[in-house]
Formats: sequence, structure tokens, C-alpha cells
Amino acid sequence: MLRADASRNRGRILRAARHLFATRGIDVPMAAIARRAGVGTATLYRRFPTRESLVTEVFADQLAMCVGALSEALADDDPWRGFRTAVEKVCAMQVVDRGFTAAFLTAFPGAFDLERKRAEAEDELAELIRRAKAAGRLRADFVLADLMLLLMANGAVVAGAGDAAAAASRRLVAYFLQSWEAGHAGPLPPPPAELRYVG
Amino acid sequence: MLRADASRNRGRILRAARHLFATRGIDVPMAAIARRAGVGTATLYRRFPTRESLVTEVFADQLAMCVGALSEALADDDPWRGFRTAVEKVCAMQVVDRGFTAAFLTAFPGAFDLERKRAEAEDELAELIRRAKAAGRLRADFVLADLMLLLMANGAVVAGAGDAAAAASRRLVAYFLQSWEAGHAGPLPPPPAELRYVG
Repeated sequence: MLRADASRNRGRILRAARHLFATRGIDVPMAAIARRAGVGTATLYRRFPTRESLVTEVFADQLAMCVGALSEALADDDPWRGFRTAVEKVCAMQVVDRGFTAAFLTAFPGAFDLERKRAEAEDELAELIRRAKAAGRLRADFVLADLMLLLMANGAVVAGAGDAAAAASRRLVAYFLQSWEAGHAGPLPPPPAELRYVG
Repeated sequence: MLRADASRNRGRILRAARHLFATRGIDVPMAAIARRAGVGTATLYRRFPTRESLVTEVFADQLAMCVGALSEALADDDPWRGFRTAVEKVCAMQVVDRGFTAAFLTAFPGAFDLERKRAEAEDELAELIRRAKAAGRLRADFVLADLMLLLMANGAVVAGAGDAAAAASRRLVAYFLQSWEAGHAGPLPPPPAELRYVG
């Protein structure tokens, strides 16, 4: 009985933390997380002694899957196929786990392990993009922010399309990938100077 | 003083109604709207004697702008330019008014004036799509649901990109339009059988 309570509290804390990290950043007061979760701060600190332990728990799995998809993509002989496959995989993860967008798009200043893992993921992604451009398959004016556009768009389609989420997401991703092919490149408005996910 | 209160209440009611219509449909109880707005039901009914008067007020302006953009597009000699311009205009409206997505994507059974106006807009849109395809510029496998994908995506980018919203939206729309050009058509996953906006 006590064990069931503990497990339920843990789930509520993680859900509350995920929401508040995504909407207000990881500097949100621990007390606000406890309040949203409907638990006392003592309970919160018993489960998660430091803020970093909570941040890591919330986002580590998601980042690890993402890094895995990127590593596989880099191992592909065909850089454009690798790029496409990685994009499709990451977007499929978004269908299953809606917290994923936040994990990938939010900055976590101070959460060193996560930031290091994310920096790794970004390096791999940059290399994947470089190779796909060098192979002449990814348009030259593609920028990393374009991938964030897709992640935001896909997050919304997944959240808004109900039962049709998986089918809608697949079609959305296919459209994006086709518009990113070098052979299809027409003039584009410049990307925003800085594109950060603000919730 | 009383007048300022009345105007503030009216704004709160419209905001609450817009949110609840979008997330729970227009059948949401009037009492729920009053509760969310923080006003008594007597106040709500004094401002809006019927549900339809409230629905119409919330969405009429937005639909009218949309219909206007479509009529202009149909008057263009070049159907593809007309189509592109209409899509760009509607998406630019989304940047300015975030309730717009809901107005366009939500069904309003029972709100006859609105439903008639929306049916008109959909007819105009279908004609615009038919002409752009006939001109060989819009890909043959394009469906109306693809436009809803863009509206959902654009709504999310506008909501999520903060100060970069306008620039991010322009780039997103350009990518979509390029992926919709007939010359760029590659195989696509089928569209979802039914794509409805569920909030």
C-alpha cells in the first residue's frame, strides 16, 4: 500500500516537473513542482534530493534515444538516407512521448550531464547535416533551426490530431523531408536569427 | 467605473469561451465558461443571451478574414499564385491572432451562421485547389487535410517561437508550399482518414 503511494507520488512529481521544466525552464522553484504534483516538499526532496537528479530523470531517457538514432544515422553509408531515417525516428518518438519535444528543444543550464549529452547529439546532428549536404542531397540553405521547426510542428500535430496522430505525423514528416531535398530547393525566407523553444 | 468592469468581464468571457470552444467544443456548458471567466452565470447571460451569440462573436471576424483571402485568391489569373498567396495570408493571420487556428479547424454544429460561412470558405478552398491542380502546379495527391497540417504546425510555431514567431512562420510556410509543388512530388504516406482538430 505504501509502495503504491510512493510510486504514484513519483509519477506525479515527474509529470509536474516535466510540464514546469518545459513551460518555465529548469530553474522553476522545487516548491512549485511539489505544489503542482500535489505532494509536500519533504516528499519531493526524499525522492529527488537535488534539482539535477530530477532534471536528469525527466529527460535522460529521451535524450539517450535521440543520441542512439543519430549514431545509427552516422553509421549509414548513404548520408541522405541516414539523415531521413534519423528525422523519421525522432518524429516517431514524439508520437509516443509528447515530452520529447521539450527534452530536445529546451536549454538546461546547470544540468551538466544533460547538457553534455545534448551537445554530443548536436555535434552528431551537425555532422549528419554536413555529410548530407556534401552528398548533394540536402539543400545547401538548410539550417539546424529548420529541424526545430519540424519538431515544433510535429509536436502540435501529434497533440492536436487525436487518433489520426501517427498517420498525420508520417505525412507531415514526408512533406518536410521532400522540401529539404536539394533538387527541390526554391528561394526561402531567411531562418530566424535565434529559434528557441519557449513553451 | 461600471463601464470598465463590463468591458473587462466581456473580454474575460470571450477569452474563456474561445479556450473552451477550442479544447472542449462549442457544446461546453455555459456554466463552465462563466466559471473559467470568473463571472457569475447571470453576468454571462446578460452579455450573451444564447450560446450561438457567444460562438458567433468569438469566431465571426476570423472566419470573415479567411473568406476574404480566399475570394481574392480565386480572383487571381494564376491559380497557383492565388493558392500560395491565400495560404501565406491565412498563416500570417495566425501569427497575429492565435485563436485563428481553432476558428478554422473546429466544427460548430448548431452555429448555423458560422457553419454556413465555413462551408462557403471550404467550397472556395476546394475550387482553389482544383484550379491549382488543373494548372499543373499543385501536386495531384494534395488533400484538404494537408492544409490543416500546416495550420496546426504554424499555430505551434507561432506559439512556441516567441520573438522569432513571424520569421519562423514565414520559413515554415515556404517549406510547405515548396513541398506542395507538383514538380517536387515524391511518394507520400496516405493522409489520415479523418483529420479533426481536437485541441
